[in-house]
Amino acid sequence: MITIHGHRPSGNSYKVQLLLDHLARPHRWHDVDSTAGQTRTEAFLALNPNGKVPVLEREDGSVLAESNAILCWLADGTAYLPADPWRRAQALQWLFFEQYSHEPYVAVARFIRRYLPEDHARRAELPRLIERGEQALAVMERHLADRDFFVDGGYGVADIALFAYTHVAADGGFDLIGCPAIGRWLARVRAQPGFAPMRD
Amino acid sequence: MITIHGHRPSGNSYKVQLLLDHLARPHRWHDVDSTAGQTRTEAFLALNPNGKVPVLEREDGSVLAESNAILCWLADGTAYLPADPWRRAQALQWLFFEQYSHEPYVAVARFIRRYLPEDHARRAELPRLIERGEQALAVMERHLADRDFFVDGGYGVADIALFAYTHVAADGGFDLIGCPAIGRWLARVRAQPGFAPMRD
Repeated sequence: MITIHGHRPSGNSYKVQLLLDHLARPHRWHDVDSTAGQTRTEAFLALNPNGKVPVLEREDGSVLAESNAILCWLADGTAYLPADPWRRAQALQWLFFEQYSHEPYVAVARFIRRYLPEDHARRAELPRLIERGEQALAVMERHLADRDFFVDGGYGVADIALFAYTHVAADGGFDLIGCPAIGRWLARVRAQPGFAPMRD
Repeated sequence: MITIHGHRPSGNSYKVQLLLDHLARPHRWHDVDSTAGQTRTEAFLALNPNGKVPVLEREDGSVLAESNAILCWLADGTAYLPADPWRRAQALQWLFFEQYSHEPYVAVARFIRRYLPEDHARRAELPRLIERGEQALAVMERHLADRDFFVDGGYGVADIALFAYTHVAADGGFDLIGCPAIGRWLARVRAQPGFAPMRD
């Protein structure tokens, strides 16, 4: 059986939980609280030298880090990762978009507003994070204007990855009122078989 | 025939050029100078609403963005992307590591030092970028200490993606003297069949 080392209120960990729920795949969950320094211990760094959750561990002790790589491995051979090479490449495009142009702004703004004291120096980063995060949301809104899901062929890993922090974007100070296509897409994701909310 | 819209001195574009050289795959190259605003024109944003190079365009007009997604699509079915699902997942892990934990520091430090005036306000970001970039390089150094390439089975997309900005890390103010394993790996990459340097 696989073990997931993850932190439930982290969107990156939630992605993996959500896909496992869709797949009804048995697993152990080992909670590692990244906000309490538990990803910086010697034991955790032996598992992932980059010091981040989630990490997937197999019975033989081999490990896989990076939430979106874990999604792809778990989804391989299922309806959640397209078998067609071009569609699979489109899914990867959105997974890299999520990690480069979305998460560093939408998730980090949420982290600062939720976990740091109100007088913390990092609050000064918020205006730039909001500006960049809004740019990412605008790219998503435009793409979803005439599509049900990110990749033709249906719901899959790209939607799961982008749902994780978009559905809690308000925590970071983002307003989705001006993004009706994103709003409809969030509802479609929540209606998927096996969908389970973030355990927060 | 495919067309690559890219900027030759950009590491993200160089990744794609390097793999195409390895594969000896015919293509058109359309240079788009991201440092001169050419990724922000209406025509370019119609191609990639996220405003970034490289972009791969097929004869039928369909497009694929995100350098590492392009690498995976081009490498699919070749020796540069493992066919084994676990190894392929390991390659993806390093591609996401590159975009999240490496490029935003190693590449951005290079951009600031190379393209912005000496008195530019963004120079203030450099100490933090150097600190985070050094953390990424330390993860790579540790991983390469007892391996020839990032993923068991040989040279491939993970090496290509990480080579792109690591081999010019000195431009960003990084010193690789303390990273002998990275130094040996850079030499192994340069010795691969079809290797071609960045056209800078």
